[in-house]
Amino acid sequence: VRRSSCSSVPGSSSAVWSTMADKAQLQEAIKTQGEVVRKLKSEKASKEQIDEEVAKLLQLKAQLGGDEGKHVFVLKTAKGTRDYNPKQMAIREKVFNIIISCFKRHGAETIDTPVFELKETLTGKYGEDSKLIYDLKDQGGELLSLRYDLTVPFARYLAMNKITNIKRYHIAKVYRRDNPAMTRGRYREFYQCDFDIAGQYDAMIPDAECLKIVYEILNELDLGDFHIKVNDRRILDGMFAVCGVPGEKFRTICSTVDKLDKMAWEDVKKEMVNEKGLSEDVADRIGEYVSMQGGQDLAERLLQDPKLSQNKQACAGLTDMKLLFSYLELFQVTDKVVFDLSLARGLDYYTGVIYEAILSQTIPAPAEQNGADEAGVSVGSVAGGGRYDGLVGMFDPKGRKVPCVGVSIGIERIFSIMEQKAETSSEKVRTTETQVLVASAQKNLLEERLKLTSELWNAGIKVEVLYKKNPKLLSQLQHCEETGIPLVAILGEQELKDGVVKLRNVASREEVRLIVSQIVYNLSCILTKHFD
Amino acid sequence: VRRSSCSSVPGSSSAVWSTMADKAQLQEAIKTQGEVVRKLKSEKASKEQIDEEVAKLLQLKAQLGGDEGKHVFVLKTAKGTRDYNPKQMAIREKVFNIIISCFKRHGAETIDTPVFELKETLTGKYGEDSKLIYDLKDQGGELLSLRYDLTVPFARYLAMNKITNIKRYHIAKVYRRDNPAMTRGRYREFYQCDFDIAGQYDAMIPDAECLKIVYEILNELDLGDFHIKVNDRRILDGMFAVCGVPGEKFRTICSTVDKLDKMAWEDVKKEMVNEKGLSEDVADRIGEYVSMQGGQDLAERLLQDPKLSQNKQACAGLTDMKLLFSYLELFQVTDKVVFDLSLARGLDYYTGVIYEAILSQTIPAPAEQNGADEAGVSVGSVAGGGRYDGLVGMFDPKGRKVPCVGVSIGIERIFSIMEQKAETSSEKVRTTETQVLVASAQKNLLEERLKLTSELWNAGIKVEVLYKKNPKLLSQLQHCEETGIPLVAILGEQELKDGVVKLRNVASREEVRLIVSQIVYNLSCILTKHFD
Repeated sequence: VRRSSCSSVPGSSSAVWSTMADKAQLQEAIKTQGEVVRKLKSEKASKEQIDEEVAKLLQLKAQLGGDEGKHVFVLKTAKGTRDYNPKQMAIREKVFNIIISCFKRHGAETIDTPVFELKETLTGKYGEDSKLIYDLKDQGGELLSLRYDLTVPFARYLAMNKITNIKRYHIAKVYRRDNPAMTRGRYREFYQCDFDIAGQYDAMIPDAECLKIVYEILNELDLGDFHIKVNDRRILDGMFAVCGVPGEKFRTICSTVDKLDKMAWEDVKKEMVNEKGLSEDVADRIGEYVSMQGGQDLAERLLQDPKLSQNKQACAGLTDMKLLFSYLELFQVTDKVVFDLSLARGLDYYTGVIYEAILSQTIPAPAEQNGADEAGVSVGSVAGGGRYDGLVGMFDPKGRKVPCVGVSIGIERIFSIMEQKAETSSEKVRTTETQVLVASAQKNLLEERLKLTSELWNAGIKVEVLYKKNPKLLSQLQHCEETGIPLVAILGEQELKDGVVKLRNVASREEVRLIVSQIVYNLSCILTKHFD
Repeated sequence: VRRSSCSSVPGSSSAVWSTMADKAQLQEAIKTQGEVVRKLKSEKASKEQIDEEVAKLLQLKAQLGGDEGKHVFVLKTAKGTRDYNPKQMAIREKVFNIIISCFKRHGAETIDTPVFELKETLTGKYGEDSKLIYDLKDQGGELLSLRYDLTVPFARYLAMNKITNIKRYHIAKVYRRDNPAMTRGRYREFYQCDFDIAGQYDAMIPDAECLKIVYEILNELDLGDFHIKVNDRRILDGMFAVCGVPGEKFRTICSTVDKLDKMAWEDVKKEMVNEKGLSEDVADRIGEYVSMQGGQDLAERLLQDPKLSQNKQACAGLTDMKLLFSYLELFQVTDKVVFDLSLARGLDYYTGVIYEAILSQTIPAPAEQNGADEAGVSVGSVAGGGRYDGLVGMFDPKGRKVPCVGVSIGIERIFSIMEQKAETSSEKVRTTETQVLVASAQKNLLEERLKLTSELWNAGIKVEVLYKKNPKLLSQLQHCEETGIPLVAILGEQELKDGVVKLRNVASREEVRLIVSQIVYNLSCILTKHFD
């Protein structure tokens, strides 16, 4: 008897309930779990928490089995994952279309990589987050893990194929065993949407294009006002150096600075002093710099800064920042771009310019849902990226570097904003593109309906027909209203004798008569004119 | 020290080589593996086999490490998987567009499901193929497996959301630990492309639409002539019954009949008699039936067959077959559809009509590559499906059934046919859609190039510009030729003074002058007229 398929029970992940004793034990477990659920409900715990415990209860009950020998399944998706229903898919498609059009307008190619990589390809790239990687079971053969992001597979792809320059986008799902997933509303399977330019080019030109792309996409998605913060890792490092931060503390202080978008300076300073061991003086000096915001003018001013101007790294970063702004000027995007010395970004691998786009309008949304960290951006931000010149070299046997700059669009957050907008909007989201329903007003016209439907399909018109021999006209019209089909072609015996078909506009109820022999032509004209 | 990232060594999947003794052992392993490779080469073994052993050798050498302390990565994708490069992606996109347009023309919605499911959702659905399921490592929490097809997740989705009718398509990757994967050229990660109609409808109308869809897609993909075989599980079962096959042998004899597309009748008969234990008589009676092919006429004739007409199942199947053909007539697809009593199909879950589309032209292709079984279809066939009225009920706690009929397009086989066509065609596959390169004939025109580029992007024109301050005109023209950009806008000092830009057709070398202030309008006109 194969029993390995049994679902797990809390505390004994591979328990098997087969004997009577087991059954008693199972009933006991059900009772205990029932109490857990009741307690949570009485405490008015969060819906997610209750749902999770209820699922466990159902799983236990399922194992007990109502019908003898019949295995009852627990009907759910894996923890932290979700299905996309047709409505969510329609929104997803709309968002993807806008983003992909933009990438293509900028001449990008696209690639795809397998959903899993050799485990060792991922190891050593994500620091302590490595514990969130999904590993596949060792079923003999290579040790594999699900991809954690799209950047490491991209770097592996470049090194493996010895590609030294490419402009590519990649939209695909990535996987993180984030815990607790449901209560914080964070998904374990989610999309990333990356655009990167790899290659040895003149300074700041590809970097400026990445910012132009963010600007275009956020404009077209129509998510309200936004701004894009830019900074440079070299400026940060130079700043840390002149403030007196010891070299080995650059990265950890960088992480603390990164919290300035969620924490007040006072708290950030406390962390620097109490947890990271900086002196008050040093922290205060950092505090002065990170409060600065501006544009090209700020870069120019800082190049004159008595301390910063002495640091080679900082000067290089500031000179490039000036150059970047001059290109952004030509790209007409400086109205949204702010040089902000407090921007640090989480990831270790950035080596130059970094940026993050933030929506100005706070959306009264599932607060922590989706946005956070998913595309490596903090709550509120919807895109982020930067220059990483060292990553590809980690994969090259000879350490040959391929300079890269890229941006990741926080697509899951954008989906949820669009979904909410759709919820509150009066306009219904259509999940099909059907233009015409071929219907009949009387019985016994199935053959005529199928024939006309086929003719219209052959002409490339999007048509549906109900799969009933004799559907009622009312239910055919209801189907149009429910699914948003704008036109209905109504066949009737008298009309067919006269060689015509009634075409009704579902919304306005206006009707016209079309001559059957010219219906494809006439219908195409109407569709192009009114419904495109 | 974290060492869990070490790659595996044959025979000791989690070996760690850290001490000197380990190092000696590793060197020994490298020597042995080197001999394996040399032996295979001297025996002229298959490329796949050699590559696989070479990969193991490289992996061992990588562990030894050239530079002290530096971990050298094995640069490869997981066994049985591949990256899609931009050219493959361009072909993939083209194929998807044709297929998705067809699905949408027929009013289908789309859904998506997570790449992994609870392990128990998949168990008991695939018979002995279950051993090919990829399990995720138990890292605490639920036991998960990668999806094996899209049909079981679809059935789970319907049952879970209590959906009783939907017309949906789903295009996504599925996973099978097929072994040996590389030598048989079969992928472990591959696309499925499914269209299904779920719901209680009048007989054969949705079934006919599925066949219409296969017809339309194969026509539009332009893969040469094809035909679609149809049969019905009830006809097969009735036929087995009247031929004297014992009930418990129906499914296994069905599998044997399914081999008729690859084996001669004599061999199929042998298997029936010698392996499956049928008498010669019974096998011969089956042999008579399975040689029959025809259309509606054959269904009518068999309804008069003295034996078959006595079987209730067969009669139901034959009556529906007649009805199906009458609808196919209205859909104008009967020229490609053959009622073929030898069609059996592999999967257990079919309950009614079944079908399979086969390309007539044998493509001199990587023989066994891709096609086989990937979409549940046999070699040579590019689409298949049928009616499965019982699967959703397996997930419903009360066993409520949702009748379903669907088709799976053998997309991987289609990709590889299209890739081959592209190889032999003189037309180059473009991987970008760029319409214009903004170039300059002299130095120091970067700003002007970026400004014009931005203006064109803002107007929705697909434009590239080289990321160099002073690129040579020749290298800019070469970039156009290499990537297929049809137009190049050439800036020059004199032209800018005159307020014009030269626009060159890369292929014909014709040039026109466009007035800078009207360039967006004029360029848009040219693009619409000549390059759409």
